[in-house]
Amino acid sequence: MKKTQVDNCEDVLLSMRLIAENLKEVVDRLDKKSIKIMIQKILNSKRIFLMGAGRSGLVAKAFAMRLMHLGFSVYVIGETTTPAVQPEDVVIAISGSGETHSIADLGKIVKDIGSTLITVTSKKESTLGRISDIAVILPSKTKNDLDAGGYLERNMRGDYKNVPPLGTSFEITSLIFLDSIIAQLITLTGASEAELKSRHTNIE
Amino acid sequence: MKKTQVDNCEDVLLSMRLIAENLKEVVDRLDKKSIKIMIQKILNSKRIFLMGAGRSGLVAKAFAMRLMHLGFSVYVIGETTTPAVQPEDVVIAISGSGETHSIADLGKIVKDIGSTLITVTSKKESTLGRISDIAVILPSKTKNDLDAGGYLERNMRGDYKNVPPLGTSFEITSLIFLDSIIAQLITLTGASEAELKSRHTNIE
Amino acid sequence: MKKTQVDNCEDVLLSMRLIAENLKEVVDRLDKKSIKIMIQKILNSKRIFLMGAGRSGLVAKAFAMRLMHLGFSVYVIGETTTPAVQPEDVVIAISGSGETHSIADLGKIVKDIGSTLITVTSKKESTLGRISDIAVILPSKTKNDLDAGGYLERNMRGDYKNVPPLGTSFEITSLIFLDSIIAQLITLTGASEAELKSRHTNIE
Amino acid sequence: MKKTQVDNCEDVLLSMRLIAENLKEVVDRLDKKSIKIMIQKILNSKRIFLMGAGRSGLVAKAFAMRLMHLGFSVYVIGETTTPAVQPEDVVIAISGSGETHSIADLGKIVKDIGSTLITVTSKKESTLGRISDIAVILPSKTKNDLDAGGYLERNMRGDYKNVPPLGTSFEITSLIFLDSIIAQLITLTGASEAELKSRHTNIE
Repeated sequence: MKKTQVDNCEDVLLSMRLIAENLKEVVDRLDKKSIKIMIQKILNSKRIFLMGAGRSGLVAKAFAMRLMHLGFSVYVIGETTTPAVQPEDVVIAISGSGETHSIADLGKIVKDIGSTLITVTSKKESTLGRISDIAVILPSKTKNDLDAGGYLERNMRGDYKNVPPLGTSFEITSLIFLDSIIAQLITLTGASEAELKSRHTNIE
Repeated sequence: MKKTQVDNCEDVLLSMRLIAENLKEVVDRLDKKSIKIMIQKILNSKRIFLMGAGRSGLVAKAFAMRLMHLGFSVYVIGETTTPAVQPEDVVIAISGSGETHSIADLGKIVKDIGSTLITVTSKKESTLGRISDIAVILPSKTKNDLDAGGYLERNMRGDYKNVPPLGTSFEITSLIFLDSIIAQLITLTGASEAELKSRHTNIE
Repeated sequence: MKKTQVDNCEDVLLSMRLIAENLKEVVDRLDKKSIKIMIQKILNSKRIFLMGAGRSGLVAKAFAMRLMHLGFSVYVIGETTTPAVQPEDVVIAISGSGETHSIADLGKIVKDIGSTLITVTSKKESTLGRISDIAVILPSKTKNDLDAGGYLERNMRGDYKNVPPLGTSFEITSLIFLDSIIAQLITLTGASEAELKSRHTNIE
Repeated sequence: MKKTQVDNCEDVLLSMRLIAENLKEVVDRLDKKSIKIMIQKILNSKRIFLMGAGRSGLVAKAFAMRLMHLGFSVYVIGETTTPAVQPEDVVIAISGSGETHSIADLGKIVKDIGSTLITVTSKKESTLGRISDIAVILPSKTKNDLDAGGYLERNMRGDYKNVPPLGTSFEITSLIFLDSIIAQLITLTGASEAELKSRHTNIE
């Protein structure tokens, strides 16, 4: 790829603006009831477990880290010292398609245990969407939408040019959605930013 | 925290809208020259290494995953099969403050090896900002800005209420910025979404 | 647990000696043919993928790291920049019981893709043992042998006292077995220790 | 490497036997006093943090997982939901050379915080060995002993042939040592194998 000369970065700026636009459209389409129940379940939980694969797994970890800063007992499925899930625990799955093989499998185990399963996804009619106690739907294009396209993006521009590929739209939206859940949890718990910082790892 | 009753989710929606607004302001303040050089260095690289701590480390991994989907030889510092860095390699550090202890230390080693160091940060005048070959500045509040506050957010509302805490603003902005770099790399390399998907892990 | 007074460390020393004895017994029971084929498959491979869950996953990573030091193209399933598995790739699964849910599932996908699947396990008659192209059997107690007990340990002492719990015996044996595969690969490839060290990560 | 024909696996078997021999020699050279203090500190701890880089980091994680199964509050430095270290915490570092850059740096921070630092290493006279409250010495060759060689191995055979490379000897010895610490902790706490299994992750 060595001979390509980079003359401008217009696509970068345009993509960022499209993402900001997309985000505002998503906000208008959110179902408030499922979000309220999700926040209530988090507040009432004894322990919270996060899971996700690939980039959705990274979003799950980013949310878990902030919940820890807020003082919740929180674990990421697959990490070293994560204990067994118990019936009274809340498990939150992040999956754009709601069909990610390993996560859907784990979701079924979670329901067999009897724990509460919350899924953040863009597909209500998906394996994870159907088996979850609560599914929060973030309307987004996912990596399985090669043909159909995310309707939001399609409405916006009529094509995909300058829109980040695969499930990017869902991953960005879910990160921002979950960070905004944190903003409301801060209001509800009255946590100060100094308190959060005191729990932030001090050896990194 | 069990007795709190969640009556609404207005903070979630407001925070998401503020993040979208903030993002648009950031786009207007970006330095195009450093972005163009960053893209050129990525295109000319033989191998790319990503590094970051905490949530910035998650952003680094999200970018690395997409570069792999695009066909680049890319590694994350600290993962199992990441090889030794060579002088002809490009190392990209993600650090909001530019001062994260372990990453700044590794940045010095990278410069001793003689590799190219690119830092994505919100602080030009930081340890990493100073020693990097290229520093791309994303104006954002970071976790060390407890007192001063991010000027963007302050301009916008005069206070912090409803804005996600610590370095959230930088982490979201850097994820979206890097995903938009991917959008431009797709244009420049002519990669199709189907090609990207063919490299996406098929056993997750 | 605060009041326990530690007067001696005899259990530590005894356990270490039992593990050393156990290891020698295991060596006498190994099937040389499957080991030879495993080494041949590794030498002939274009790319190698490792997978395992929990402590077996850590053993998988330890082996992957040394294969990288030896110059092989090697990836760990689940890490950030691990690409899609292709039919010509070799996938090595580490599972004491051969029944670990997620790994057995991934093993089936690996066989559907048409790649070569090698399993290191203590149970030939297990899901992974049955579907693998090669199964190298390391006779050991696993975490599912609460009642039956590892016959090696039982032969040796008649009970479990001082023997590390759950699948520890398999995990130790598999780490040592795989490090000894590395020893033979060094002989076969003529790699020097200095060459290995040159590939060892230089920024940790 | 495609043309090499694998005719035997004698090096594998020989290496495994050498490792078993080596292990027995190490046991005879252990300092019982430091081991007793280490066990006492673990029993008295409120929370335990593990850290290590590369393969020593994998050993640290394997130990952390078993401590969790035993019911201890235990964290791995660098994982997602690991909280800030407090003065009353115990931090255990695993480092063959005692000089691993990042871990020695973190060790200094741990001592600045005022926490208890335990190092498992093969070098008493190393950075980590010197600053630790307790250093448990496991006599082994490490990855920095290219010239001098591990005296145990040298005494045993006069050369390195068939001995796994770099720090392998330390990594194996430290895994077995720490699993044997677990064996003694089981005796001291009276934990049953069924209790351990009940804490083992149930969604993997």
